[in-house]
Amino acid sequence: MVSGSYPDHLREQVDAYLQTISFSEDADLAGLEEAMRYSLLAPGKRIRPVLCLASAAALGKSPASVLPVAAALELIHTYSLIHDDLPAMDDDELRRGLPTCHVAFGEHVAILAGDALYAEAFRHVVEHQQAEAANVVAVIGCLAAATGVDGMVGGQYLDVATAAPTGPNGLRHLHELKTGRLIAAAVECPLLLSAPSEGETMLVYRRFAAELGVLFQIVDDILDVTGTDVALGKPSGSDERHGKRTYVSEHGLEHARELAARSHQAARDALALAAPVGANELEQITDFIYTRSS
Amino acid sequence: MVSGSYPDHLREQVDAYLQTISFSEDADLAGLEEAMRYSLLAPGKRIRPVLCLASAAALGKSPASVLPVAAALELIHTYSLIHDDLPAMDDDELRRGLPTCHVAFGEHVAILAGDALYAEAFRHVVEHQQAEAANVVAVIGCLAAATGVDGMVGGQYLDVATAAPTGPNGLRHLHELKTGRLIAAAVECPLLLSAPSEGETMLVYRRFAAELGVLFQIVDDILDVTGTDVALGKPSGSDERHGKRTYVSEHGLEHARELAARSHQAARDALALAAPVGANELEQITDFIYTRSS
Repeated sequence: MVSGSYPDHLREQVDAYLQTISFSEDADLAGLEEAMRYSLLAPGKRIRPVLCLASAAALGKSPASVLPVAAALELIHTYSLIHDDLPAMDDDELRRGLPTCHVAFGEHVAILAGDALYAEAFRHVVEHQQAEAANVVAVIGCLAAATGVDGMVGGQYLDVATAAPTGPNGLRHLHELKTGRLIAAAVECPLLLSAPSEGETMLVYRRFAAELGVLFQIVDDILDVTGTDVALGKPSGSDERHGKRTYVSEHGLEHARELAARSHQAARDALALAAPVGANELEQITDFIYTRSS
Repeated sequence: MVSGSYPDHLREQVDAYLQTISFSEDADLAGLEEAMRYSLLAPGKRIRPVLCLASAAALGKSPASVLPVAAALELIHTYSLIHDDLPAMDDDELRRGLPTCHVAFGEHVAILAGDALYAEAFRHVVEHQQAEAANVVAVIGCLAAATGVDGMVGGQYLDVATAAPTGPNGLRHLHELKTGRLIAAAVECPLLLSAPSEGETMLVYRRFAAELGVLFQIVDDILDVTGTDVALGKPSGSDERHGKRTYVSEHGLEHARELAARSHQAARDALALAAPVGANELEQITDFIYTRSS
């Protein structure tokens, strides 16, 4: 039986840290900062930063020591949500239980709030992440690659482009880029901050992170069909309305559930290999991602 | 008498280098890459990367040694043009003599092409810029700060927001952020790549770069009124149609021309202080920015 508890102490650490971030002292820019903080601080599970802190703990590092890069992950994730929700993209009006950024502040402000969150993510790492310069460069390279053409933005392109590849492999490819790469980065960044990073350790953690990304997406697709609006904080069934290809549309609900169970087991196996003496919080997150209802 | 010749040998170096950049080997993403390259490779003066190469030369460094960060500056500039042109922003249909990115590829692709160019700029610096890690971190910090809330994106917010500050000071503040910070970064990055950067040298180059940014914008505003569509590669008079505050609307054409002359002299004076033994190409660019007709 899989529990499903969440490492809330790590989430609280992330939330408290995000609250402290101020983007500008410039009063003229208060409206832009307001839109950024509105989306950033909307209640969320903080899966990426929590995963980052839990990975640090599994490596014997203090979770607090990676808070700057963890925050950068949430800034980047928030930027991607704001842009994905835009009228020209998914045209969604509700997110995390609140009106989306462009509904609340206008489309022009939402585009810029997303752009600014992305810039501030890199700035925050440079200005606040304690580590050798070479490790900071590695982290920035990881974040940039995870979010560029061969990462998150490329995945979003496949999701909205008409010429996207079809079939189960196309779907998996789409999600590896769109959500998988940033989730993997959340696990990889703490490794990149440990000098020197060992090739073998990196490899097994990467396998775990990749499987976790797949699991996350399968469950996400299932919840879009089975979840309630209140639990999701956005309208359920929106994938179908948008004509999106999902694990459910591609495989049917029952088979998608089987795929989730298999993916969960594969992630736990990979984690056992990566952290043979146990990694309590990473195990918790893996189980939570599998059993969550929102 | 001010000449107005341009260091074309540096522009050619930049153009040749930009041609070599490939963003992805992934055939599924060819459409995204096409939109990115369409906007990136449209004919342009390449002022920011050329300024970067010329600054390297003035510091006794090889211009070729800073090509990766110079390219990143052009990727970032292109991303900002694509987003500024969007229907929710300036809603422009012509840029660099070609249909804007969203007209050619659709709004969703244009948003993502901008996002991707920005990510790839950081990735390119990390993967290709030769320097000590500490210097690479400094360059990335400079680029992120120049493009974030207190930089380019903040400036664009002031340009489109209704609550933007008014008057000549408000206008100067807007442009310092919107165009000035990235132009300054083009001069600063080569300094940051020289280890260790001397505080005094940085300071005088910064003063030069800041003045150059102001000069660039005053001339830009004058050209929007006096230039032809063909020379500009976009419709002239668009500032007025958009109800934008410009140096011309704020001061009148004649006074704006005086301000440009004063700013040009101030930039030349600052440059003479920064590079007492002469900096031929930086002088050329300064004169070109003043006398250009497009």
